[in-house]
This record gives sequence, C-alpha cells and structure tokens, in this order.
Amino acid sequence: MSANKKCVVVLSGGPDSAIVAYWAKNQGYQVYPLTFKYGQIAAKETLAAQKIAENLSTNTKIIDLSALKDIFNQTTALVNRNIPLTSEFTPTIIVPFRNAIFLSVAVAYATTVEADNIFYGAHGSDEPFFPDSRREFYEAFEKAARLGTEQNINIHAPYSDKKKFELFKIGATLNVPLEITWSCYLDGEKHCGLCESCVNRKKAFYESNIADPTEYEN
Amino acid sequence: MSANKKCVVVLSGGPDSAIVAYWAKNQGYQVYPLTFKYGQIAAKETLAAQKIAENLSTNTKIIDLSALKDIFNQTTALVNRNIPLTSEFTPTIIVPFRNAIFLSVAVAYATTVEADNIFYGAHGSDEPFFPDSRREFYEAFEKAARLGTEQNINIHAPYSDKKKFELFKIGATLNVPLEITWSCYLDGEKHCGLCESCVNRKKAFYESNIADPTEYEN
Repeated sequence: MSANKKCVVVLSGGPDSAIVAYWAKNQGYQVYPLTFKYGQIAAKETLAAQKIAENLSTNTKIIDLSALKDIFNQTTALVNRNIPLTSEFTPTIIVPFRNAIFLSVAVAYATTVEADNIFYGAHGSDEPFFPDSRREFYEAFEKAARLGTEQNINIHAPYSDKKKFELFKIGATLNVPLEITWSCYLDGEKHCGLCESCVNRKKAFYESNIADPTEYEN
Repeated sequence: MSANKKCVVVLSGGPDSAIVAYWAKNQGYQVYPLTFKYGQIAAKETLAAQKIAENLSTNTKIIDLSALKDIFNQTTALVNRNIPLTSEFTPTIIVPFRNAIFLSVAVAYATTVEADNIFYGAHGSDEPFFPDSRREFYEAFEKAARLGTEQNINIHAPYSDKKKFELFKIGATLNVPLEITWSCYLDGEKHCGLCESCVNRKKAFYESNIADPTEYEN
C-alpha cells in the first residue's frame, strides 16, 4: 500500500463493490467511484451506483462503454436477451475480461486524479467462477499497470479471501445501505429473484443472518 | 506463439499498426482488425483504418469509446484542443494507459472470435517515451490476459525491436499502402506537418529512403 490516500473504486451498483467503497472511506481514503455502462441489461445498477455514491457524499463518474455490447453480445447473457439466464453459474454469465477492461480505465482515471490505489469488489465466492476476480489475476494486472504508467499503482480487492456472506456482515457493520444496491441481471421493477445473481444475493443475506430488505418478483 | 492462426490487430489508422496488420496477413493469419474511437481529435485515423482494412479485404470493427474523453481530457493534447501540441515529445501526448485499454478490449474480442493472438504496433522508437509500448509492459499484460481469461492468449508487438524507419522499409516490401495511413494528431484536410506525430512520419519516410506521398500543410 502507498501513503497516497486517494483511491478509485470500481462501483457497479451491486452490494460487493458498495461494501468496498464504504470500506475504503472507512480506511480514510478519498474515494473516486467509477461506474461503467457496457450494454448490460441491468441498467438499474448504474442508478444504484449513483445512489451509493451520494450516500458516500460524492458522485460516481459514469463512463459509457455501451459500444462493447457489440463484442459481449456474442457470448454473454448479461447483455444479450436471446441467451437464457439460469439460477446457477454458466459460462454465459462471464463477460469476457470485463474486470480488466474496467481496471484499465480505472488506471487511466487514477493517473488523472493522482490516486495510487484502485479497489474492486472481487471476492472469494466469485473466484472459482470468474478468472478476472482472482488475486493472481489482479496481481498480474497491477504489474502491467505499474509498467504501463510508470506510476506506483496498487490494485487490490480487499475481500479476495472472504465469502460473499462475510462481505455482507462487514457491510452491515459499516452501515452500507445494502437495500439500495442492485444485483439482478435483468431490468424489472423488482429483483427477479431467480437469476444466478439474485440467488447469490438471497443466499448472502440468509447466511449472514441479515434481514433481506430486497423485493423479489419470485 | 500458438498454432491458432487467427489474430486481432489493434488498427489505429496510422502506418505502424497498418504494417503490423499486413505482416500478420503475410504470416498466414486471419486478421480481425479492431479500431477505437476514444475522443481523439484525429478523427481521420478511423477512416484511414477502414481503408486499410478494405485493402486487406476485410472490415475493421470500430468500437466507440469516446466517453473516455472525459478522462483523457484532463491531461492529453490528443483529445483536448486547449492543451498545446508541440513538434517534440511532451508528456501531454501520452494518453494514459491507452494501449492497455485497447488491449483489454482486444482480449475480450479475441475470446469471442476464438483468436489466440493479439498484435499491436508498438515499436522501438516509441519505447523510450510511451511505457505501454514496451515489451516488459505487454509481456506483463499477456500474463494478466491468460490468468483473466484462462485462455492461451498471446500478445505481441512484432516490431518491438525495430525503429520506425525500419518498419517503413518492411511496410514497403509488404506493399502496405502507406499513402492512405493517417499520422497527424489534428483533423485538418492534410497532415499538419508540425505535430510530433507528423514529424516522426516525415522522419521515417526520409530515413527509410521511401518517397513520402503525404501532403503536409507545413
């Protein structure tokens, strides 16, 4: 870690990155949230990110990379409504190299605001399924970031070794407004309650013994 | 190198990446060109990239990341007309971590077209000035790409050890239509002839002993 106390946090609007943003503020960092549109069906997560940032007394910089839908559309159900969603993990919910794309923009942003630190919400429950959520990935990426900017960039997922329900427990102690976060892969009025992300959200509330404030369709 | 003979080439519309695309085709690769808008003043380079792709009997996939201008605008003269351009290198012509952003999208694209290889136009004359043009950078990035996709991604700048004028010589032997490439950082009718990129273009034609077909304002 650097003595520099500015950080960019990749803030999706979901609970995991919200907890990371609150953790960073709690650690004394000046937080620069950064949110991406990438053609995801779940447009509501961007609105949730804005609300979370407001609760942190800041704004999130929203970068519209919706053109990437042209690429992601080929393989992923998160942007292509013709690819079916399921309640369990399937490779079609992997958005290829998404975290690297977001982190690379975060690095560029960090250099312009003179932040040495970039935090994101990868955690232990995602690691088995999403290769760009693993510590070995982001450590390699950090090395590339340092070489590619000649700056002392630190990239870190502070909850790499925690399960999602453990994050939720931490979130509760940090008073993260989990009720305003959005997890669903769809764009309904309420969380669908059936997609893999809704299932994981329900499970994390249940296992952390926190009352789930979410309204689900199912 | 992999046995897979598909490659994504980051094609800017400038001579260096055009030569790499021709090199790749000459090596027997099926070339998937990929071109980015990132808010650059030099909008003509995208048109040049299209023409180069047509000359290679293909199309370039143009990805519009113009929203990144919001970040690059802070520090770089290539997107912000209020930051003066000069004829020599200055840090204000560095677009922070640009190659990493482009390469990360190229990796995502490569996974969807099942290409193992990504080539880009970094070369020895750029290496001292642009950290994300160096071999040590792209080798680190390749490692991150393999970890982040669990695929055998190769990232390579085939002319890393060549000077720009040496590329031009190779380009001439490969019959690259250098006359349709665009180098200028501005968007005039002709190349300005004064910006750092025009100066390097002139120099490379001169040093390679190739007649310069470019029309310059100055």
